[in-house]
Amino acid sequence: MTEAAPATPEQTYSYLGPAGTFTEAALKQVPEAAGKHWRSVNNVGEALADVTTGRSTAAMIAIENSIEGGVSATQDALATVPGLRIVGEYLVPVNFVLVARPGTTLAEVRLINAHPVAYAQSRGWLERHLPDHGYIPAASNVQAAASLFDGSQADAAVAPPGITDHLDVDVLARDIGDNPNAVTRFVLVSRSRALPEPTGADKTSLIVELPDDEPGSLLAMLEQFSTRGVNLSLLESRPIGDALGRYRFVVDLDGHVSDERVADALLGLRRTSPKVIFLGSYPRADQREIEYHSKFDDEIFIEARDWLRGLVSGEPDVD
Amino acid sequence: MTEAAPATPEQTYSYLGPAGTFTEAALKQVPEAAGKHWRSVNNVGEALADVTTGRSTAAMIAIENSIEGGVSATQDALATVPGLRIVGEYLVPVNFVLVARPGTTLAEVRLINAHPVAYAQSRGWLERHLPDHGYIPAASNVQAAASLFDGSQADAAVAPPGITDHLDVDVLARDIGDNPNAVTRFVLVSRSRALPEPTGADKTSLIVELPDDEPGSLLAMLEQFSTRGVNLSLLESRPIGDALGRYRFVVDLDGHVSDERVADALLGLRRTSPKVIFLGSYPRADQREIEYHSKFDDEIFIEARDWLRGLVSGEPDVD
Amino acid sequence: MTEAAPATPEQTYSYLGPAGTFTEAALKQVPEAAGKHWRSVNNVGEALADVTTGRSTAAMIAIENSIEGGVSATQDALATVPGLRIVGEYLVPVNFVLVARPGTTLAEVRLINAHPVAYAQSRGWLERHLPDHGYIPAASNVQAAASLFDGSQADAAVAPPGITDHLDVDVLARDIGDNPNAVTRFVLVSRSRALPEPTGADKTSLIVELPDDEPGSLLAMLEQFSTRGVNLSLLESRPIGDALGRYRFVVDLDGHVSDERVADALLGLRRTSPKVIFLGSYPRADQREIEYHSKFDDEIFIEARDWLRGLVSGEPDVD
Amino acid sequence: MTEAAPATPEQTYSYLGPAGTFTEAALKQVPEAAGKHWRSVNNVGEALADVTTGRSTAAMIAIENSIEGGVSATQDALATVPGLRIVGEYLVPVNFVLVARPGTTLAEVRLINAHPVAYAQSRGWLERHLPDHGYIPAASNVQAAASLFDGSQADAAVAPPGITDHLDVDVLARDIGDNPNAVTRFVLVSRSRALPEPTGADKTSLIVELPDDEPGSLLAMLEQFSTRGVNLSLLESRPIGDALGRYRFVVDLDGHVSDERVADALLGLRRTSPKVIFLGSYPRADQREIEYHSKFDDEIFIEARDWLRGLVSGEPDVD
Repeated sequence: MTEAAPATPEQTYSYLGPAGTFTEAALKQVPEAAGKHWRSVNNVGEALADVTTGRSTAAMIAIENSIEGGVSATQDALATVPGLRIVGEYLVPVNFVLVARPGTTLAEVRLINAHPVAYAQSRGWLERHLPDHGYIPAASNVQAAASLFDGSQADAAVAPPGITDHLDVDVLARDIGDNPNAVTRFVLVSRSRALPEPTGADKTSLIVELPDDEPGSLLAMLEQFSTRGVNLSLLESRPIGDALGRYRFVVDLDGHVSDERVADALLGLRRTSPKVIFLGSYPRADQREIEYHSKFDDEIFIEARDWLRGLVSGEPDVD
Repeated sequence: MTEAAPATPEQTYSYLGPAGTFTEAALKQVPEAAGKHWRSVNNVGEALADVTTGRSTAAMIAIENSIEGGVSATQDALATVPGLRIVGEYLVPVNFVLVARPGTTLAEVRLINAHPVAYAQSRGWLERHLPDHGYIPAASNVQAAASLFDGSQADAAVAPPGITDHLDVDVLARDIGDNPNAVTRFVLVSRSRALPEPTGADKTSLIVELPDDEPGSLLAMLEQFSTRGVNLSLLESRPIGDALGRYRFVVDLDGHVSDERVADALLGLRRTSPKVIFLGSYPRADQREIEYHSKFDDEIFIEARDWLRGLVSGEPDVD
Repeated sequence: MTEAAPATPEQTYSYLGPAGTFTEAALKQVPEAAGKHWRSVNNVGEALADVTTGRSTAAMIAIENSIEGGVSATQDALATVPGLRIVGEYLVPVNFVLVARPGTTLAEVRLINAHPVAYAQSRGWLERHLPDHGYIPAASNVQAAASLFDGSQADAAVAPPGITDHLDVDVLARDIGDNPNAVTRFVLVSRSRALPEPTGADKTSLIVELPDDEPGSLLAMLEQFSTRGVNLSLLESRPIGDALGRYRFVVDLDGHVSDERVADALLGLRRTSPKVIFLGSYPRADQREIEYHSKFDDEIFIEARDWLRGLVSGEPDVD
Repeated sequence: MTEAAPATPEQTYSYLGPAGTFTEAALKQVPEAAGKHWRSVNNVGEALADVTTGRSTAAMIAIENSIEGGVSATQDALATVPGLRIVGEYLVPVNFVLVARPGTTLAEVRLINAHPVAYAQSRGWLERHLPDHGYIPAASNVQAAASLFDGSQADAAVAPPGITDHLDVDVLARDIGDNPNAVTRFVLVSRSRALPEPTGADKTSLIVELPDDEPGSLLAMLEQFSTRGVNLSLLESRPIGDALGRYRFVVDLDGHVSDERVADALLGLRRTSPKVIFLGSYPRADQREIEYHSKFDDEIFIEARDWLRGLVSGEPDVD
């Protein structure tokens, strides 16, 4: 995956397991990961620790979903664990099945085990078809189903469709997610400092803290982007955690740091923010080419620098 | 609580129970609720449904905590359930104890039951003192402790300090929260349309959707506030849920809608946003008086209107 | 002209004379002035004094030309003489002829008399055809020509084409203006407080002072307009005159004060500026209909006020 | 004066003459000009032509006065004559005397000759003491006085105090200027491309054209400065001259182009404006040190560039 590390069989990719999770589905989209060692971990912290300690080459982690928004644990980990870089982005359609121990019927279901996010995303279906159900939260989508064989009192579990590859369960209902377009966005994280080449369809991720007690500092941050024609595809606030009302911002922007307009916006941001964490520039999962006004073309920036250099050096200017 | 409803014994206040939760601690801060019927419910949706159906006069719900940020379920419920108003704000210091069935020692603890937020807030302590522990998520802080007597495999639970009033547990450790200043913000929600009187130390809560595909629309929204000297104490994005990248914003601002500068900012916001939900103007829990530049005083707005009225009516102006 | 004053024969219109000036050509465009008494004056100050003292109903004065920009004397007079209102706008194409005493040939011309603005506007032609000419400034275009019969040493004068109606001169050359599209903008000024009815093709004129020593105060002023979709057709700075670097701004904007978006911008301006002089809302000379985004329609402003009124009064809101 | 040209006796300085003008007073403030050839010219165009053709090393021209504002002819000449640079700034207090042919008394004065700007600046005094006076415009302050001996019908002239060094006139009144603090700002203009060294008390002059038909383009221009903490001491609009409503802007800003914040603002300006003319960075006449927020210090800009370079090159970043 990374250019620095040799593509040896020892390469390891960490992901939120066990087998069957949406995270595993994301990792299956990474060509470089095929045939390498895949390490199932229990949470985002563990996945990132694998990367920072060098145990794994990279880790696949969920960063945003269309129902619940940014994944707080991931955002907070990226903000606090140093030395990480996002090197790729992957989208996984999110859908759910309701599964039970073999022989169970839908009418028999009273208690449902589900990961809280999965439960939130299928609550509409559950309330319509099982209005009297009880709910037990699970630590992951796969664990919810696994618990059916593990002494849990639950009668059924909300699980990813691929669960039937791994567990001997009956599918009581398919497509129980409330939003048929639900999708989760994953990122592949490594320690590599080498930037993926710009493709014209790139994304750059940042975490930005704003100066304290400066009214209008968020406004000023947004202007750093808007004045360079840089569009934001994600802007989320996350509490820094030391006091109510102190926030950092998670930002995804259209473009690559090697694009002049993006680089110039980052310079402005760096100058005005007490802390800017650059998480990486990488190809967008949807491969949609970035559109921007031609007045923010690279040549415009280069010409302006040449002009200024001429002024300062004393060369005749050419208007 | 509300001016419209008579203070009869039938008044009911819903809260996330059971007894012993931080939400109950918040409700104890409401003078009007003393001696009334308190109804323990299982989640925010149920609490708000009690209010909209008229079953309860008001409901106490958690809206933000200093570690995890805005409470998504509450924010989303307020954005989608119509007819609700926030009429008061309450702060509860958040701390945790580690409890177990009587006779258990800390050394014996292997598996811990905890609400995910409580677990996140005490993970530092747990990883230092119980590095090998396992974790089972619970639906509430009190349920985590209650499960110890309910067939759970857990050896201990993270719980609020008041848990010992309700359950026969041993406290294995106190003050295990990672942040000694952690606090959760609660709001009291009713159907009342009558606005609490302005106190000079007020807060106004809004939910705002921005026009699609208008770059700079967030910038424009923030300018509606900054140009009237209105400070924001909270700004959070929440996915609308229909597609990746579509957000609504949860906004708390300093001041009361009967303040001229706030009213004018709301007018601007209403004109430029496809949807603005007014959640209420109410006294701040911290009673801190709002400070703003004198150029945004009520009289300035009133004088300008008088001047304009004179122009349009054809009266001589007085510069 | 004004609705308040009866259309009696005593009505008087002042203009920069004598007969034959461009100002007289502008006054000829005013239907209400036909058949009334026209009073020729020597300068803008005299014209405006006629209006403020009630000697004249209205005065026609030049306010901007396409070569020289705003007419400083007019702008300064409007800023300092109280009680004036612009009630109409008129455009006069500006062109010049070179005239001389009968019998003079172009080859004989050495010294030219011209008003400084006329001289500036025909200097290109003069330098090409009379490279060795000398120049004597005149107080007006007509006076330049009149001086030929008044002992002046000048051989020729730059004058308006209509000069031949008034003086016995030979035209040595026509169309000597350097810019064939040159035009001068005139305004009719009265003491009337009654606003001309909005026509959909209106202009509003203001003079605005900015707060001292507030960096960004011009930016803030411009935002008052841009955030309401109000376009400026003129923005000129004029020194206040008490110290270097102190300016007032002359502003023409698209629209009528009875347009909601214009009224709201004026309110914002009044609140943030130490001094705003409203000079009037009146039909544009070019009758070009004002275009603006539908999000700044009157109804949008009215709906927002209704919504806010509902919130404050405690009525159920309708989102 | 200029570093490129040798300090030979052939050095020539052009100025608006004749001897006795305020422009000559400004030139007397230039140490490098002492003992060199001074060439009196008739107008700004001639002075600048001397520089562009190499006939003079430099020219002193008036650019702004505290009563009349920017000198239009100068601003327009600098906008259209290529290859010029401002290399110094000088302030001359402006005051006037009323002079007449020897033996004339104030009571005898009927007709006054004066340069239009001088007339405007002393009109208050003249109207109080000579309410019935007539006025003849002159091409310069000195010419006004000289005309008294040149067949003019004028009885007196408004002139600079130094006029008595050059002409045999009687002073009828002193200090007749209406504003005792009136001052005119002059600039020394050369073809030199070498920038004067930054002194910490510098000024940079620009002429900027804005994109057509882009509402908000002036706002965007001002933000280029405000976002870098660059204060403007002058902002004037001047018609481009090809159509009503088309403007260029004359800008003076605090700081030197070798200051990082100024350089960055110029880059932004160059990228967003169809035309930017750099007129020079030079020491301020008042030697007042530029104040700006420490967040716009040079080091902040340098650090940000280093940070960005590290990101792009793949070096480990240091937050």
